[in-house]
Amino acid sequence: MTAPTQVRIVEVGARDGLQNEKTIVPAATKIELIDRLSATGLRTIEATSFVSPKWIPQLADATEVFTGIARKPGVAYPVLVPNLQGYERARAVGADEVAVFAAASEAFSRKNINASIDESIERFEPVLERARADGVKVRGYVSTVLGCPYQGEVPLGDVVRVARRLHALGCYEISLGDTIGIGTPGKARAMLRAVAAEVPMPALAVHFHDTRGQALANILACLEEGVAVVDSSVSGTGGCPYAKGATGNVATEDVVYMLDGLGIATGVDLPALIATGLWLSARLGRETSSRVARASL
Amino acid sequence: MTAPTQVRIVEVGARDGLQNEKTIVPAATKIELIDRLSATGLRTIEATSFVSPKWIPQLADATEVFTGIARKPGVAYPVLVPNLQGYERARAVGADEVAVFAAASEAFSRKNINASIDESIERFEPVLERARADGVKVRGYVSTVLGCPYQGEVPLGDVVRVARRLHALGCYEISLGDTIGIGTPGKARAMLRAVAAEVPMPALAVHFHDTRGQALANILACLEEGVAVVDSSVSGTGGCPYAKGATGNVATEDVVYMLDGLGIATGVDLPALIATGLWLSARLGRETSSRVARASL
Repeated sequence: MTAPTQVRIVEVGARDGLQNEKTIVPAATKIELIDRLSATGLRTIEATSFVSPKWIPQLADATEVFTGIARKPGVAYPVLVPNLQGYERARAVGADEVAVFAAASEAFSRKNINASIDESIERFEPVLERARADGVKVRGYVSTVLGCPYQGEVPLGDVVRVARRLHALGCYEISLGDTIGIGTPGKARAMLRAVAAEVPMPALAVHFHDTRGQALANILACLEEGVAVVDSSVSGTGGCPYAKGATGNVATEDVVYMLDGLGIATGVDLPALIATGLWLSARLGRETSSRVARASL
Repeated sequence: MTAPTQVRIVEVGARDGLQNEKTIVPAATKIELIDRLSATGLRTIEATSFVSPKWIPQLADATEVFTGIARKPGVAYPVLVPNLQGYERARAVGADEVAVFAAASEAFSRKNINASIDESIERFEPVLERARADGVKVRGYVSTVLGCPYQGEVPLGDVVRVARRLHALGCYEISLGDTIGIGTPGKARAMLRAVAAEVPMPALAVHFHDTRGQALANILACLEEGVAVVDSSVSGTGGCPYAKGATGNVATEDVVYMLDGLGIATGVDLPALIATGLWLSARLGRETSSRVARASL
């Protein structure tokens, strides 16, 4: 048992969350969301994605959003970039932290980004090289770490290989994502342990979807293994394209409630976070997916 | 780490669940529910409650339900009894396992059953005496073990005292209930550990409500402490009278999914259980609260 005394939450609602919502949210709402989030004490807020608007119309307003937010000192606002072109667009508006996205599943990589895992990493290499020269931090996502909607099982060795490679290429942090929310605590723990044997634990984050309600239990198991960075999404925004009607990312409110109860510091003001999540749900015209928020009503 | 290799699920949907649903379900549906549940491999299915119909109209048909089910050999069908009168009604229709209900919170006991904790236990004493003479097993519930809607904090010593007393009076199993779903894994673990210092772990069960989404994480922490009996409710039936719109009991489907993933045997056929939960939700005219069931749609 080496559960940390502090956890950094990486709030992904404005990007990973809204990207998977049907409703297209106006830029002004996104800006208000991000500014409200930074006021809650969150220190890492993924802001948007500089992918082609053709691919993800929900985030076509990346430039407007990123230039509109009131950047708070001490808060990181990473943005997703798919390639060097995206990186340049992000840099042009002042982004100083970016994220790249790879998959542990070969089938998922081909379906999702139309490239093999190796090809996708080759695309990142110039981004990572340029970022190093620019002093820009790069976060790396590895998706489908506990299962894939196309190929099913994902060998642990593939997860470790991709995580190790992103880390070796210069990503300061690797976020291990159970994209389809299929994992259970023992499998999550074993996966994290295998990766941590090759990439130092302080460079690892976990990213769980709550599709089958397992996210908090999985996070608990990973905390016990020593992970100290957790991705989550306010109000549990983001559905699951692989299971209709299922919830997406684990809700930040529910994670913070658990961490508060465990005596693990996050620096996040839970009532302010709940209020922000309820405000966002109203804007999205749907019920919050945070159970803590629902219980507060 | 002393997680068990097998867990017995105590399915409480037909009693604790339906008791807290607004819809009054016809006896025939309850009978079909219980028979469907026994076909899934569940070994303990709480069937109904022999309380006064004035208090709980949802379960006024206890006799009809209990005499209507097809009792499967090897399956226990406990029924809740509030006092000796209820015990006699239950025995008259052939019940051979009963359950009694106490609170760890003095305020909750007074509000919920209009008696102090000590008075409530005094009411059970003749039930336990008679049950011993009749060879009837008695399960004991202790509610509000992690917090109370009226008094807030519940001292751990009170939980231990009530659990120890019910055990000493002859309850073969004590179910420790977080009635308002307020607990988090560290507190659940500490509570279980304190009780297990006085009552042997094999005589303990945990009963979590998922009001704040913490139930599976709490169960995981308790499994790690060695508990091997878990209460849950198919489809997550039963709301939470203390938090409107919140979910009630943790869904059996989600518990079994986690246990399957952990390699802990339950003997329950998950697809059959999911089908039963969806069937019940349709009868209740509402969406299932099981995330595993929703993800299966």
